[in-house]
Amino acid sequence: MQFSSESRVLALTGGVGGAKLCLGLAHCLAGEQLCIVANTADDFEHLGLNICPDLDTVMYTLAGLSDREKGWGLAGESWNCLSALEAAGGETWFLLGDKDIATHLVRTGMMNAGRSLSEATAKLCKQLGLNVSLLPMSDDPVRTMVQTAGGELPFQEYFVRERCAPEVSGFRFDGLEKARPQPEFLRTVEDSALRAIIICPSNPFVSVEPIISLPGIREGMASSQAPVIAVSPIVAGMAIKGPAAKMMQELSMPSSALAVAEYYGNLLDGFVIDERDWAQAEAIERLGISVLVVPTIMNSLQGRIELAEQVLEFSHSLM
Amino acid sequence: MQFSSESRVLALTGGVGGAKLCLGLAHCLAGEQLCIVANTADDFEHLGLNICPDLDTVMYTLAGLSDREKGWGLAGESWNCLSALEAAGGETWFLLGDKDIATHLVRTGMMNAGRSLSEATAKLCKQLGLNVSLLPMSDDPVRTMVQTAGGELPFQEYFVRERCAPEVSGFRFDGLEKARPQPEFLRTVEDSALRAIIICPSNPFVSVEPIISLPGIREGMASSQAPVIAVSPIVAGMAIKGPAAKMMQELSMPSSALAVAEYYGNLLDGFVIDERDWAQAEAIERLGISVLVVPTIMNSLQGRIELAEQVLEFSHSLM
Repeated sequence: MQFSSESRVLALTGGVGGAKLCLGLAHCLAGEQLCIVANTADDFEHLGLNICPDLDTVMYTLAGLSDREKGWGLAGESWNCLSALEAAGGETWFLLGDKDIATHLVRTGMMNAGRSLSEATAKLCKQLGLNVSLLPMSDDPVRTMVQTAGGELPFQEYFVRERCAPEVSGFRFDGLEKARPQPEFLRTVEDSALRAIIICPSNPFVSVEPIISLPGIREGMASSQAPVIAVSPIVAGMAIKGPAAKMMQELSMPSSALAVAEYYGNLLDGFVIDERDWAQAEAIERLGISVLVVPTIMNSLQGRIELAEQVLEFSHSLM
Repeated sequence: MQFSSESRVLALTGGVGGAKLCLGLAHCLAGEQLCIVANTADDFEHLGLNICPDLDTVMYTLAGLSDREKGWGLAGESWNCLSALEAAGGETWFLLGDKDIATHLVRTGMMNAGRSLSEATAKLCKQLGLNVSLLPMSDDPVRTMVQTAGGELPFQEYFVRERCAPEVSGFRFDGLEKARPQPEFLRTVEDSALRAIIICPSNPFVSVEPIISLPGIREGMASSQAPVIAVSPIVAGMAIKGPAAKMMQELSMPSSALAVAEYYGNLLDGFVIDERDWAQAEAIERLGISVLVVPTIMNSLQGRIELAEQVLEFSHSLM
């Protein structure tokens, strides 16, 4: 690794795909070198619980607890509460596993007692034995509202209850203007020891956009000496997981790596695309963005580590 | 049964002992004849959940779902969330079962959405197929604070976390002055069709006192044409379950059925004591309270039904 022990890396992430790259990065870097910031705009309050799907996905993935077959939630999960919830006439569209509920209860208990989401996240990470810094993008609530022909839907209702079926016309991030970036996040963006800002292969619209739109973040990324590198969430025109490609089509964008690069625009110094999209490299470079073409599908732990290594080397070459 | 179909019975109850008598009453009366009012002063907010132990005990008991061996909670319960809660460093002194959590989630979800505790209780009862009217004593929060040498403790911390160890010097019912009795409860107290007001064998200080101290209730009970009958929670100097006898000693009262009768005083028209306490009958009658001496330990469903029948007959004799 070309990264000295003082070097730091900032990773911005959403859900499952981002979490895989974060796991790879965590294998390549010492704990104090890696700061992971997760989207919180798809957090929601459900049956009294404060639920943070992206934070939990990263947390469970880093701890080796995630269910790799389902692609979400905890391995070996049980569903006794959910069955009882159904019998009791409660809402069951959001699949609450028995073990997963414990995470929400710890967080909700702390936050109802006046602690911040950052404090709750730090406690949960510590209990799981994680030694990387995982931060919510903000301690202030930001909530993605998905604009559809049928009106606005809170993100989880769109994503889980409606299974991304409604046609999307835009997004609104409720609370974003007043939200402050998590203080350690802002310090890291401005840290002179920062050597890379990595935008993980997450949904550009609903995972990454809320993070980089927080007051001061886009400016901080632009003025950082560290290169900003995104990994394309679109491979061969499709999203590996989630509605990114469907959203792009509905927003009248081509669903391509190139379109993602254009969307991020001059925020990026480098863009990592899959080898299947090699033909788009030239067009992306014409945008003034350096391109790395590698296999980006992370089907194994080894694949996650290799992609992380390549992204870190790429960022090093762009310093 | 001497009770005509228009006759109504009001039962005031706390936890397990009260719930057993309520089950007996539910077997003796048609659904529309029985109104059960449960104490809510030992409700609490825990890890974001609205938990109502007394309402749930009655609900689970009436539905035949309660765990008879443990004496609380649901039969066939699982504890996967609690194990995960422990691993996550959460508070585990209150034993949350996976199925039980579903009840709290339905209630919390409804109440966070602006519905009342009565509405949440009605929904839960309906889903369980109960056809009796089970009401919280109030839709306004009342919280028992237990006064001890070490200071005030919220009831569940005293009862569950501290296992009733601290010596009690008194009680304070936070919110009681401003709390309104549940409207249907108040209407039932004032109902001319009411034929009995039964104070179940529950803790006089922390289960019954909050209910009868709600504004207008003691007055309503005193002016009702229906006799007020209590079943002693103390048998042979001991409480069948819970800290009633210990509290009486700490409050410098004899732990006896007689002392309970003296405590309720002229609120009572009749008092039901166990056959083991027959020697106290005369002293209780000298207080101007009629006494029924019967076996009061309800070890079986048949025992619950028999006691309920005897209490109803006793009340009939006092009309």
